[in-house]
Amino acid sequence: MTSDTTSQSNDPASGIRDGEVAVALPDHFDAQLYFIGRIRTPWKTRSECPKNARQARESGTVCTIEVDPRWQQALPGVETCSHLIVLYWMDRARRDLVVQVPAQYGSGKPTFSLRSPVRPNPIALSVVELRKVEGSTLHVVGLDCLDGTPLVDIKPYFSSTDSIADARVGWHADRR
Amino acid sequence: MTSDTTSQSNDPASGIRDGEVAVALPDHFDAQLYFIGRIRTPWKTRSECPKNARQARESGTVCTIEVDPRWQQALPGVETCSHLIVLYWMDRARRDLVVQVPAQYGSGKPTFSLRSPVRPNPIALSVVELRKVEGSTLHVVGLDCLDGTPLVDIKPYFSSTDSIADARVGWHADRR
Repeated sequence: MTSDTTSQSNDPASGIRDGEVAVALPDHFDAQLYFIGRIRTPWKTRSECPKNARQARESGTVCTIEVDPRWQQALPGVETCSHLIVLYWMDRARRDLVVQVPAQYGSGKPTFSLRSPVRPNPIALSVVELRKVEGSTLHVVGLDCLDGTPLVDIKPYFSSTDSIADARVGWHADRR
Repeated sequence: MTSDTTSQSNDPASGIRDGEVAVALPDHFDAQLYFIGRIRTPWKTRSECPKNARQARESGTVCTIEVDPRWQQALPGVETCSHLIVLYWMDRARRDLVVQVPAQYGSGKPTFSLRSPVRPNPIALSVVELRKVEGSTLHVVGLDCLDGTPLVDIKPYFSSTDSIADARVGWHADRR
């Protein structure tokens, strides 16, 4: 990493927090996405959103995923799933921070060690419980995003390969 | 779904299998991705790849994820994770099939009920076991993709929210 690609937070104009590190973004994009629907939640501002997926799930709040009618024929069979993986686009997140200071930790954390929406490709992932499918609308529990968030993908959750009960995030488990 | 947006497989020029259904793609993209690295695997052709994530994991084959040096400062802390979620781009997959006929099932399956790379946004997701980090290279077990596949994201796997041991994909469990 050469210094000319790195912007430290001592530049107040950059709008980043003390301890955060931004890099120059690549000069071109490599692939493109379609938004395939919208997520509807009760939360209109970031401060209203659950702090994380655990809080979202424990709250039991039912959110809806509205899939664009174009893709409706891709949905049958989804209703037989107890859980889904939902990918969505955090369109308000900046993409150039390699170290960030999440409010709940208060110190610099490298981006790929976090689930924060701030990352080079701001694709968020939630494992949700499917409650009901009505036409092209899914009712789910476990989302923590803003109302109107763009939908990128829906995948069946297979416990055989997606469930790792004893997985460990060391820095997080040891943080106190 | 109006008929003018649907192409059935009785058009041999479309290159889709009997039973597959394609829709007209949207006339614009909505968001853009950076490729942030490459995945290195022993598999140079599709026929060499493991058939699915389970087979990949059980084979124990160690693959490597080469993160672009631009993002290296985003990696510390990742080495404390036992497992990661890896997102990657299946750049050879078509995006317009809402019903597809995977070789292993032999009949039409709606796209969002599958983990197939063929989907509107061909982002694949694997939960991998992290064996070692060397600089900006991660050694992992659990990938089943072609050598050279573009990397989109790396996330820590949190068992508290990502592990659902009793999740069920009904159509898959009941298929025999």
